[in-house]
Amino acid sequence: MKLNLMPVPAQIKLSDGTYKIDENFSIQIRGETSDRILSNAARLMERLSGRTGMTFKQNYLSFENDVTLPGLILEYDRIGCLRLFEDESYHLNISTKNILLKAQTDIGVLRGMETLLQLFSSDDTGYFFPAICVKDEPRFPWRGLMIDVCRHFMPVDVIKRNLDGMAAVKMNIMHLHLTDDQGFRIECKTFPKLHELGSDGYYYTQEQIKEIIKYADNRGIRVVPEFDIPGHATSWLVALPELASAPGPYQIERTWGIKNPVFNPVTEKTYQFFSRFFEEMAGLFQDEYMHIGGDENNGVHWNSNDEITDFMSKNGMTSILELQNYFNKRILEITSSYNKKLMGWDEILQPGLPKSVVIQSWRGHDFLTESAQKGYYTILSNGYYLDLNHSTEFHYLNDPVPADSSLTPEEQKYILGGEAAMWGEVVTAEIIDSRIWPRNAAIAERLWSQATIRDVDDMYRRLEKMSFQLEELGLLHKKNQFMMLKRLVNNRDITLLKVLVDVLEPVKDYLEYRPDHLTQQSPMTRTVYATEPDSTTARKFKKMVDDYLSMPNQQTGDIEDLLIQWAENHTKLSPIIAVSPILKEIEPLSKNLSEIAKTGLHILEYVKQQKPAEKPSIIKEWQSRIEKAKQPYAQAEIIIVSAIEKLANKLK
Amino acid sequence: MKLNLMPVPAQIKLSDGTYKIDENFSIQIRGETSDRILSNAARLMERLSGRTGMTFKQNYLSFENDVTLPGLILEYDRIGCLRLFEDESYHLNISTKNILLKAQTDIGVLRGMETLLQLFSSDDTGYFFPAICVKDEPRFPWRGLMIDVCRHFMPVDVIKRNLDGMAAVKMNIMHLHLTDDQGFRIECKTFPKLHELGSDGYYYTQEQIKEIIKYADNRGIRVVPEFDIPGHATSWLVALPELASAPGPYQIERTWGIKNPVFNPVTEKTYQFFSRFFEEMAGLFQDEYMHIGGDENNGVHWNSNDEITDFMSKNGMTSILELQNYFNKRILEITSSYNKKLMGWDEILQPGLPKSVVIQSWRGHDFLTESAQKGYYTILSNGYYLDLNHSTEFHYLNDPVPADSSLTPEEQKYILGGEAAMWGEVVTAEIIDSRIWPRNAAIAERLWSQATIRDVDDMYRRLEKMSFQLEELGLLHKKNQFMMLKRLVNNRDITLLKVLVDVLEPVKDYLEYRPDHLTQQSPMTRTVYATEPDSTTARKFKKMVDDYLSMPNQQTGDIEDLLIQWAENHTKLSPIIAVSPILKEIEPLSKNLSEIAKTGLHILEYVKQQKPAEKPSIIKEWQSRIEKAKQPYAQAEIIIVSAIEKLANKLK
Repeated sequence: MKLNLMPVPAQIKLSDGTYKIDENFSIQIRGETSDRILSNAARLMERLSGRTGMTFKQNYLSFENDVTLPGLILEYDRIGCLRLFEDESYHLNISTKNILLKAQTDIGVLRGMETLLQLFSSDDTGYFFPAICVKDEPRFPWRGLMIDVCRHFMPVDVIKRNLDGMAAVKMNIMHLHLTDDQGFRIECKTFPKLHELGSDGYYYTQEQIKEIIKYADNRGIRVVPEFDIPGHATSWLVALPELASAPGPYQIERTWGIKNPVFNPVTEKTYQFFSRFFEEMAGLFQDEYMHIGGDENNGVHWNSNDEITDFMSKNGMTSILELQNYFNKRILEITSSYNKKLMGWDEILQPGLPKSVVIQSWRGHDFLTESAQKGYYTILSNGYYLDLNHSTEFHYLNDPVPADSSLTPEEQKYILGGEAAMWGEVVTAEIIDSRIWPRNAAIAERLWSQATIRDVDDMYRRLEKMSFQLEELGLLHKKNQFMMLKRLVNNRDITLLKVLVDVLEPVKDYLEYRPDHLTQQSPMTRTVYATEPDSTTARKFKKMVDDYLSMPNQQTGDIEDLLIQWAENHTKLSPIIAVSPILKEIEPLSKNLSEIAKTGLHILEYVKQQKPAEKPSIIKEWQSRIEKAKQPYAQAEIIIVSAIEKLANKLK
Repeated sequence: MKLNLMPVPAQIKLSDGTYKIDENFSIQIRGETSDRILSNAARLMERLSGRTGMTFKQNYLSFENDVTLPGLILEYDRIGCLRLFEDESYHLNISTKNILLKAQTDIGVLRGMETLLQLFSSDDTGYFFPAICVKDEPRFPWRGLMIDVCRHFMPVDVIKRNLDGMAAVKMNIMHLHLTDDQGFRIECKTFPKLHELGSDGYYYTQEQIKEIIKYADNRGIRVVPEFDIPGHATSWLVALPELASAPGPYQIERTWGIKNPVFNPVTEKTYQFFSRFFEEMAGLFQDEYMHIGGDENNGVHWNSNDEITDFMSKNGMTSILELQNYFNKRILEITSSYNKKLMGWDEILQPGLPKSVVIQSWRGHDFLTESAQKGYYTILSNGYYLDLNHSTEFHYLNDPVPADSSLTPEEQKYILGGEAAMWGEVVTAEIIDSRIWPRNAAIAERLWSQATIRDVDDMYRRLEKMSFQLEELGLLHKKNQFMMLKRLVNNRDITLLKVLVDVLEPVKDYLEYRPDHLTQQSPMTRTVYATEPDSTTARKFKKMVDDYLSMPNQQTGDIEDLLIQWAENHTKLSPIIAVSPILKEIEPLSKNLSEIAKTGLHILEYVKQQKPAEKPSIIKEWQSRIEKAKQPYAQAEIIIVSAIEKLANKLK
């Protein structure tokens, strides 16, 4: 039996037989009951009930503990605490008689419940769980997803459904990037002008934050807030021009990139402000950690402010980074006084920084290594930037502690894990799920499962199952594509457009993917936003070609069918493009797909006959078509070209 | 040019030419600006931007009024007030140069904006609005949708997306059925035990209610709360057993139907409680109306309580209705003191009821007529019960004031309009949209458009366009079906299952649709819940058959194609059913569909050859197969059988 578990547990032992469920299935809770365990048990029953159509006899809104023959026993020693290094291990034993899920904490039980749900199966005898013994615990204690809600605001629902997804793949930290140049997204009662002037009305009320924290807690997930300072701060300075390093007034930024506005680090007013601000936020957010950003301060406004440059020379500071280090230490004093530990992007790793600060590496593995060597706890985000549209494989193989790591085992202990990062420049609530999922499930596995779990094909096989289960939970990565395609063709048939979109991906380069003319107001409804960052069709086609090239005696029927479909698609799609002006920009892609597919058929003929191309001019011609087809348009590119290039290279 | 407007405006005059839009398109607001108008203008820009992919140059987050050449001018005399009889008329004039949308109130402007968005078109020259002049106003001032959030709680998001849908079809009242035997769904600060004990934790906080009211106000929609008393009150009495008519304790009801628990109307404590309760609710809900339910009090607990029967005889009351009338008048005194007008279901129409009370007719047109004749304002819900799964046509042709109405013109003025009713016994957040939409759009048209607009085929034609636009707005009536089918087959291919589901409908009879063994805990994930209440495929098939029978010389290819597809479907679907235990219950439907389709092909041959069936035994055999195929299973029925029966009848 092939299991579909994701992330793969530490130890699995399958036995013979199954545990069958029917309407008598019931749960017994052995441990101090808590909201967390009650509502997760109820949700588990609901999910099983949803899949089986069964009305279970046990009233799962009020679990009694006097069940005589429980189907599932949830046993734990204590209520877990949502903090770093909390025990999340569990032990799941499914026999033909019942299911025992044991853990030290209720959080461990939650992790095990997700494994259990992934084991749920059916055949012609009914619904069942396979008999199995699972012993499991995470490899890293910090397994996060960062969502930037500043560039485009994300309503509470987006956060909630992503928390559901995170819980399903055993992630345990939701990092909310709450402030940036383009938006201040949190209600501040002490300084209400912050959210009033800095958000266009799109911000989380404190009630909503409490709701999110409660929802996350319920799923065993910490919520770490980020207040990005001293740079990336334009939206704050709209309300606080007097704390800026250059004269105001300021307006919310509508475009992307590194901006100049930055807090003035040499006036005491700045720290007086932050003292009151963090006092309020420390009360609102329960987690022991707070993130203060600290990235991409370009120093332009600091260098052009005499007061600031005077302060630097008086204090013997020769670089912007030294001044920022001073700023960070002042902020650290403030947040420490409210019992919060700090974290920041890797720029904050400067001399004299206390060892309690966690470093988040975004610029590269080098900073991760440096942090660990210097004795700072650190997490990896470089290589986990979901907005860069890289393949799942790329993220999956990006290990915080690769096999060839130069770190000593002692140093490796400082590597806490990692965080996927979903920056918000080119996402809306409609498309964000498709940018996070299912790829994030592979990152979750990298951070939970053992380092040796690296079989890419098997990962993709399981990811397809996981993707469906994530949609079942309410994520919209597939569902919304249908609507988007319908909108593009104004409710006409989407079949032909989908053939094209299925082999397109967004370009991987920021410069192309975020062209200058796009602003915060630009719609994310164009074709590129309906493409998958890691095209399933293209991946399967590439695999077919690879398999064929490694064993050329195989049938090529499947490859040809796809090539023929693509070759014929443009002629059929053209009339729809003609009356859908929003599709005009992808006409070259449609045309190029058909042309490269025709070329592909041609090349395939040669490969099949195992004869080299008779004339160099033909190869040259093919090469030029291949280059042409690689050309991106409208921020998207045809992703099957590389497979055709491989075929052509076979003839060289 | 065929327009796709829904509801059809009062007057339309098409001209030659179009108004084309490009990135210079801008809006000018001529009138006192309000949040309502600003956010709707921004949303209009966003929707156009979404459809065209254009980044408009105007910053629609802060409309300036110094636009030199506005594409769209919004002009109105005053900010409208959300109350009965408020002016909602508008005048929309699209020329080749610009668009002028004029109204007396900003609410009228909102109604016109929806018409404008429905006129949006594209062709190979680009995006445009057709030149047109529309003068429009509603036929009825009360055009509502009632949602029961008690039997199954509906999260805020469900309400919000339905408010979006309502606004799109110009409905103006969201009636929230907030309390019933199965749940007390609103936070009560004066008596917190009400929501704490009566809701399983599923209720709206007052903050959420404010959010809903604001969201609705923003769309020109009133929110009318219903507190159903004195019956349908079990969930209140869990917290207030001392106010019940029979001894407690009480528990939240988990099953459906008419229950006995009812408030005690003869103790002053009841009215002391309601005085404080309504004081709080009158402050929370802004609308001038409050709904007190009043339906289906079966009197069992009143008749068995000596104190109550004594009170009745002392006061010369001989019926339960008289006592309830007493109760209603006492409640009316209370709510009047908080400046609220009352409404209730038609049972409350009893002697001496003040004329300020609005009567909602659910039991039949007779009660509507009676109310109007007696001089009470009244609205129709009978015939608009969406949970009964009737066809769109049925609801569409149900007119509050039919052409043959016996009411005088003077009496007709008391008929304010109607309300679609979405009772919550057999819906969840996942399926409720498919029960409300798109059928509710036809009810909205009945209540807005002139009585003469009754072309059913044209309604269905426009409804298909509207259905798509509703999905574009965020409703999930189509989107969620895909997920539901995938869940049923555990992520296998859904094509074959969909062939079957597309010709099934939920049974129309409550008794069958809500079988006794189903409770509040039963999953709404079985096949019946993935069916459309008004099957599009079946409707189109029936139309083909009707067209053919009226002109038998036509081609029958389309009819045969469908029959062949159905005839072959069961054999193909069987292996999927075999491994999906949740589908076992629909196996007879699958089998019967294939059999009746084969019979249909057989009958069609006879009809084509225009020969009567040679043997009576054949007709008898057909008839018995038809009867067999009509048999519902698993609360669903095959809905194309009637068309095959029509074919057979042709041979009689």
